[in-house]
Amino acid sequence: MHSYKESFLQFLAEKQAEICLATEQIDGSASFLIDQWKRPEGGGGDTRVMSDGAVFEKAGVNTSAVHGELPAAMREKLGVEQADFFACGLSLVMHPRNPHVPTVHANVRYFEMYDESGDISQQWFGGGTDLTPYYLYEEDVVHFHRILRESADRHDPSFYVAHKAHCDKYFHNTHRGEARGVGGVFYDYLRPGSEEEIAEHNYFNYVKDMASNFLTAYLPIVEERKDTPYTDDQKKWQEIRRGRYVEFNLVHDRGTLFGLKTNGRIESILMSLPSTVRWEYDHHPAPNSPEAKMLEVLISPREWV
Amino acid sequence: MHSYKESFLQFLAEKQAEICLATEQIDGSASFLIDQWKRPEGGGGDTRVMSDGAVFEKAGVNTSAVHGELPAAMREKLGVEQADFFACGLSLVMHPRNPHVPTVHANVRYFEMYDESGDISQQWFGGGTDLTPYYLYEEDVVHFHRILRESADRHDPSFYVAHKAHCDKYFHNTHRGEARGVGGVFYDYLRPGSEEEIAEHNYFNYVKDMASNFLTAYLPIVEERKDTPYTDDQKKWQEIRRGRYVEFNLVHDRGTLFGLKTNGRIESILMSLPSTVRWEYDHHPAPNSPEAKMLEVLISPREWV
Repeated sequence: MHSYKESFLQFLAEKQAEICLATEQIDGSASFLIDQWKRPEGGGGDTRVMSDGAVFEKAGVNTSAVHGELPAAMREKLGVEQADFFACGLSLVMHPRNPHVPTVHANVRYFEMYDESGDISQQWFGGGTDLTPYYLYEEDVVHFHRILRESADRHDPSFYVAHKAHCDKYFHNTHRGEARGVGGVFYDYLRPGSEEEIAEHNYFNYVKDMASNFLTAYLPIVEERKDTPYTDDQKKWQEIRRGRYVEFNLVHDRGTLFGLKTNGRIESILMSLPSTVRWEYDHHPAPNSPEAKMLEVLISPREWV
Repeated sequence: MHSYKESFLQFLAEKQAEICLATEQIDGSASFLIDQWKRPEGGGGDTRVMSDGAVFEKAGVNTSAVHGELPAAMREKLGVEQADFFACGLSLVMHPRNPHVPTVHANVRYFEMYDESGDISQQWFGGGTDLTPYYLYEEDVVHFHRILRESADRHDPSFYVAHKAHCDKYFHNTHRGEARGVGGVFYDYLRPGSEEEIAEHNYFNYVKDMASNFLTAYLPIVEERKDTPYTDDQKKWQEIRRGRYVEFNLVHDRGTLFGLKTNGRIESILMSLPSTVRWEYDHHPAPNSPEAKMLEVLISPREWV
């Protein structure tokens, strides 16, 4: 099998630089702190975090490339014996200050595993991106999904529908009966396969294209909403909904839990959590309020494009 | 086997009323909202929550008594076939406003299970109480542990040591390598056994005594520290540490996760979460600061009495 290792690493580095630059430009105030770290068992990462910006209370754009022997938890998950692996990815979360601007999450990753002679025995791509608004501006959600759909349709007309459904299913706070947000796309275990299969579905190009369109999907929404005035109560609602974000990431998110249980780098994993969060007992928005309208869509996810 | 059902329920109701009253008195401003609820499969609860008090930002004192067929997750956990059960308990968490006042958690519970003829086939008590300070006042911690130890020693001199060790082991954020707080006691599966065994160790009296001493262990600390002046930075530190509290409850706490996965009443389970919480990327207190001294004790738990 052909290794995408070098070309994917280069793509991740370029994408990280591009996203951080665009985020700093739109923020206009704060810049990313760069924190490079080593993984004792092999590899490491480059965590970039912006805090206390004018537009973003917290934004993290993390790349990592790790290798070595498969950790026990990973062998168990994949149902395989001892083997060497390589995994790399980019993961980002942006928590805006203004409750009219949605939170966004995106990631893209590549995994390979080797047989005893060092040849690739398994490989796949994964990733996704999803939007978590606090107030529902339907045109923003439609824009976000349209960019993702157009980007996906260039590769296969079935991708968007399948990966949108997967996203709705995955980013779901089952204990609340609520979606985390208004979804997006989510895909995993996309195996490049044989040359014929690659000719038909080039997953490498697909995931790169999806990751590249992240800025086009998200930034115009930030630009449009970042100066919308907001009240203390609207900020409080944002913080209560951020509590749901924390609940999802700590109770359900497989990547987070896997990282916490396999000695992952805690700060790079938990950079996804918002800076200020609030839990109020049994909070319910007033009937027919904008907050209640937002909640309706989270309880009954829609098709947007 | 003798059922403790009726007498334990009465004890829980009295204890809940007493704790809520004492908490309202020391708060002096807010009172508890009473929220009684039914469990569709049998039983229900009485959740009492105080919000935005002068002394307590959030305090919850919950009792519940549920019964019916063992849920699938419980059968699996206990390794038993279908059976009827009864479980009741009191669970409380108090999150003070002032960072010099520690957060406290306590609970006490009783479980019975029945054979096909309706006789009790298994029964046990469980519970515990632990303290989570934001600043280390050693005399407060010593007082808290001393009350627990004196209370436990009246029943068996081995209880405190065993149940203090269990507490340190249980309330541990393994992914951070930090204790949640300065511990206390934790016990589970205390089976009353035969009459001879009961004559030797009366677990019913033990758990009642430990629960009854909760106020004596905690309130004097609140009284002593509630008017200590504090800065914005000290409040921020409290909110960051509250983040660790949330991490423990959502990632590690068996009771919370069990409740979330078995259709428990979400709001009564998550009333344990503090009202305002903060996550900062890679936060470390300044060397030799009071915050650093607090952290030292969490990294290396001590013997206090």
